[in-house]
Amino acid sequence: MNNENEGLIPLIRIGILTISDRASRGEYEDLGGPAIHDYLNRVIVEDWAEVAAVVPDERAVIEETLTKFCDVEGCCLVVTTGGTGPAARDVTPEATEAVVEKVLPGFGEMMRQVSLQYVPTAILSRQTAGTRGHCLIINLPGKPKAIAECLDAVMPAVPYCIDLIGGPYLTTHETFVKAFRPKSG
Amino acid sequence: MNNENEGLIPLIRIGILTISDRASRGEYEDLGGPAIHDYLNRVIVEDWAEVAAVVPDERAVIEETLTKFCDVEGCCLVVTTGGTGPAARDVTPEATEAVVEKVLPGFGEMMRQVSLQYVPTAILSRQTAGTRGHCLIINLPGKPKAIAECLDAVMPAVPYCIDLIGGPYLTTHETFVKAFRPKSG
Amino acid sequence: MNNENEGLIPLIRIGILTISDRASRGEYEDLGGPAIHDYLNRVIVEDWAEVAAVVPDERAVIEETLTKFCDVEGCCLVVTTGGTGPAARDVTPEATEAVVEKVLPGFGEMMRQVSLQYVPTAILSRQTAGTRGHCLIINLPGKPKAIAECLDAVMPAVPYCIDLIGGPYLTTHETFVKAFRPKSG
Repeated sequence: MNNENEGLIPLIRIGILTISDRASRGEYEDLGGPAIHDYLNRVIVEDWAEVAAVVPDERAVIEETLTKFCDVEGCCLVVTTGGTGPAARDVTPEATEAVVEKVLPGFGEMMRQVSLQYVPTAILSRQTAGTRGHCLIINLPGKPKAIAECLDAVMPAVPYCIDLIGGPYLTTHETFVKAFRPKSG
Repeated sequence: MNNENEGLIPLIRIGILTISDRASRGEYEDLGGPAIHDYLNRVIVEDWAEVAAVVPDERAVIEETLTKFCDVEGCCLVVTTGGTGPAARDVTPEATEAVVEKVLPGFGEMMRQVSLQYVPTAILSRQTAGTRGHCLIINLPGKPKAIAECLDAVMPAVPYCIDLIGGPYLTTHETFVKAFRPKSG
Repeated sequence: MNNENEGLIPLIRIGILTISDRASRGEYEDLGGPAIHDYLNRVIVEDWAEVAAVVPDERAVIEETLTKFCDVEGCCLVVTTGGTGPAARDVTPEATEAVVEKVLPGFGEMMRQVSLQYVPTAILSRQTAGTRGHCLIINLPGKPKAIAECLDAVMPAVPYCIDLIGGPYLTTHETFVKAFRPKSG
């Protein structure tokens, strides 16, 4: 959060949802959520307000939180961390697909592709993304290093996506991320 | 259409479906449909007959037209342009998935990959493809330049796909597109 | 099978399922199944027992066999060959998706990507993978050459995937396949 206009409610609200049984029980420090916060703070030019939560790997709780972030909190972007692998408790993609109206398969393809440059186990990730009303939901991995790699890959397309779904106009610091908007939509 | 044999009904029928609210109301010139027509005319060796329509971004109308092009008009290939983005009115992939029997995820992956060489917002495209009976349906973007990039990427596999689903034997002018057929199916 | 410990039942059971109308009627020699067997025998360090079958391209039979291999035979890995194309009789991906609990889209993306280096018709493959309980199911192509190309691409991630779903600990001969396990899950 980089809110210099005291007293004004920023128009841009972004949800950061950490999904981890251990982090939600306090057995484990949440590293993913803060890593996403710092990344977005460095990259987004406008003031924005964070809406954050740490929840266990329970599909119903994840769905409920995602829905609340989109419909009640008015987020234009919700980024999740954790729960995208093949293990029985990993249910983030299922919860995401259940609440989105449109799945955007290009995000998952792109993020797996990028992570494959570092680890061959990137094919195990089931990360996805999609839209719910005026909100874009993106699943990220759990580890800060992998989070930054994935965000570097997809962030150039995020502001235009938010334009297309009727959200606020976001700009990025070009030294970090060059956001792209085609001339004619 | 390149029909030199007057009086003969060409065996190869190809549907070109423009999906755009504005083009269907006449507020906007349809550039996508003619771009696809010209591309196929340049590339396909055999005579073929075009079955064309311009429809609004309404899922029921798109589904009905795709179904008619496959089942009634006897097309072996239907190519759509427009309506594949994340905006609320973009429903071409949903309509396509509703009418196809088999989704072919490799087409969308390939087309996004190719478009990514030009614009980072290519990950926002939800383009897909699939088969309905003896017909292959492929979603293309709206802009002529992106249409040509995508067709260049997927056309080499189209004639063999049409063979496999029991359609007519297509050949391509090799200076433009090198169609590939494996030795043993 | 490489079972030197006579009298001991190996812990690692792997299913190899050939899906082909012609091979199941004996009109055609099954080349895919033996190619997978030889590949795994060369690559996996531990003793393992093969559970094999050759079935026709019938969705119900494929689903039943996959389910039996996972739930009754106790396989930690089931590899199929054949039936992944766009033809009407190709139903392996449908059967696989019907029996898995989690689809792992990265496997199909990766295998199509690798096969694209050899043939442009690789985009026609609908190969997928997923998990059912403690078992990973992977669809492979029909031809021995393409089988080896796909296994080379995905095998580095297979042992860790089996760890994550609670299966036995597999290791690979590093001259053939370098299996990768991240430091912290």
